[in-house]
Amino acid sequence: MKVVALSGGVGGAKLAFGLNRMIASDDLTIIANTGDDFCHHGLPVSPDIDTLIYTLSGLNDDVRGWGLRDETWAFMGALEKLGGETWFNLGDRDLAMHVLRREALDKGQSLSTVTEYFRRTLGISARILPMSDTSVSTIVETVEEGLLPFQRYFVQRQSLPKVTGFRFEGVAQALPPSGLLTAIQKADRIVICPSNPFISIDPILAVPGIRHSLIEASAPVIAISPIVNGEAIKGPTAKMFRELGFTPSPIAVAEKYKDFLNVMVIDETDVETSNMSKINGVEVEVAQTIMRTDADKVALAEYILRL
Amino acid sequence: MKVVALSGGVGGAKLAFGLNRMIASDDLTIIANTGDDFCHHGLPVSPDIDTLIYTLSGLNDDVRGWGLRDETWAFMGALEKLGGETWFNLGDRDLAMHVLRREALDKGQSLSTVTEYFRRTLGISARILPMSDTSVSTIVETVEEGLLPFQRYFVQRQSLPKVTGFRFEGVAQALPPSGLLTAIQKADRIVICPSNPFISIDPILAVPGIRHSLIEASAPVIAISPIVNGEAIKGPTAKMFRELGFTPSPIAVAEKYKDFLNVMVIDETDVETSNMSKINGVEVEVAQTIMRTDADKVALAEYILRL
Repeated sequence: MKVVALSGGVGGAKLAFGLNRMIASDDLTIIANTGDDFCHHGLPVSPDIDTLIYTLSGLNDDVRGWGLRDETWAFMGALEKLGGETWFNLGDRDLAMHVLRREALDKGQSLSTVTEYFRRTLGISARILPMSDTSVSTIVETVEEGLLPFQRYFVQRQSLPKVTGFRFEGVAQALPPSGLLTAIQKADRIVICPSNPFISIDPILAVPGIRHSLIEASAPVIAISPIVNGEAIKGPTAKMFRELGFTPSPIAVAEKYKDFLNVMVIDETDVETSNMSKINGVEVEVAQTIMRTDADKVALAEYILRL
Repeated sequence: MKVVALSGGVGGAKLAFGLNRMIASDDLTIIANTGDDFCHHGLPVSPDIDTLIYTLSGLNDDVRGWGLRDETWAFMGALEKLGGETWFNLGDRDLAMHVLRREALDKGQSLSTVTEYFRRTLGISARILPMSDTSVSTIVETVEEGLLPFQRYFVQRQSLPKVTGFRFEGVAQALPPSGLLTAIQKADRIVICPSNPFISIDPILAVPGIRHSLIEASAPVIAISPIVNGEAIKGPTAKMFRELGFTPSPIAVAEKYKDFLNVMVIDETDVETSNMSKINGVEVEVAQTIMRTDADKVALAEYILRL
């Protein structure tokens, strides 16, 4: 079974981990958001791709929730001594990825080629495709501080400023890597991971050709709600819904994806929707969507593949 | 007293440390060899500048002899996992310098501007000037392996191949940073540190204008022999003399510098030369030149400044 999954960082990567365990071949293609990507002290950081690579290779830190297990921070201490910026943490081990990526991009390799190299080197069977081989930058429109580049909003300002909207700079010229649209066309199942709709999935959907491919796809499109009982498992998803004037719920998520969505998987504990059979014409399925353990991740993936 | 010192890495940096303690102002200018500089995984490494900065700021590792004290190597482990090169060690703390240098050079800053920033940030009073703001690459001509870029010869091949000569690629177009030649002209004393004449001092002398400025300088030029009793304190200096057909000794060192040298300082334990008063017309002075402790470094510097 050929499966395509659209994913952001941590939450999406958990399901991607489960799918990768179930499929264990390059029949699984994960399309990663790159709107969070930015250049920090000259190093190209791709947070969602990195999280996917670390999670799927089992190198991730499950406790901290991001980055590498057994990470150390000597570089950050030295950077501070030399007057560098300290609001964004680059771990000593994590740096290897950014240094090698920088070198490869400078040699003219594409982001997708570098990503392919990393996933093969680390023995990941799934294909991981950046949504674009050209730069797309998510900009957060805020009430208090105007336009904030994503990492400034998310890491430096800890998602505190009130959001009024999002821009995806460069997205009109974005270039999906070779094979991405074909993967969607040929898929037997398309999964929208339980990632933030605004900052993880919307940037992917905004890349020319991707939303249209989902609408045209013959495979069923199945989304897993990142909202359970009005809150996100992690991150500012619910806060963003509220600030934009919506009640955070699987219904609001389904509304965002309605032009291509066939099935919305909601959590069995969601009070409001777990008894619904349809949301605005979208079929509802109920499962345990909160993934605490690796077994949870695999079980949810298995459930989705069996639907 | 205005002092200019020409220096390579470890041995030269020891004396530079002593001079910096004695002078404690920017009346001391250290001209650093940059022929060893190279780009490793896209990061610009300037081994001699780095050694000078680390030594003069007291951050260096005296026991290992290079790099930073309390260095850690998590980056190297991660780099190896990702298929990176492991023959050249980049410490986690050391990386901060290279990442910031890379970023600054990419923004169009010169190597001398970046170096000035580092020395000021770390509170070093002496000026540290790269010999050139454009790239010069020392290439080692060897019998067994032909032409070897310096770090390949020195680090990867551990200086084992037999040397027949040296090339300093780019040196004809080398650009001494602003103030370098003026510093030599206005100096009251010029010191050639006990560095390797072939790979540390010769590249500096080959930069257009520098050798000529030393010949024309009104200040006395004082060299400290890196050879004591036919051997170098550290590194392949004596081996290189022998492979090039010379007997390693302060006499051979003085011969290399004879067109501008006024005083050769030799070690008190040197059997062959410690009784000589002149070497080929160059005045000989005798001191304890082997620097084991910080006190030794300061004592030698004090001796040189009193000459």
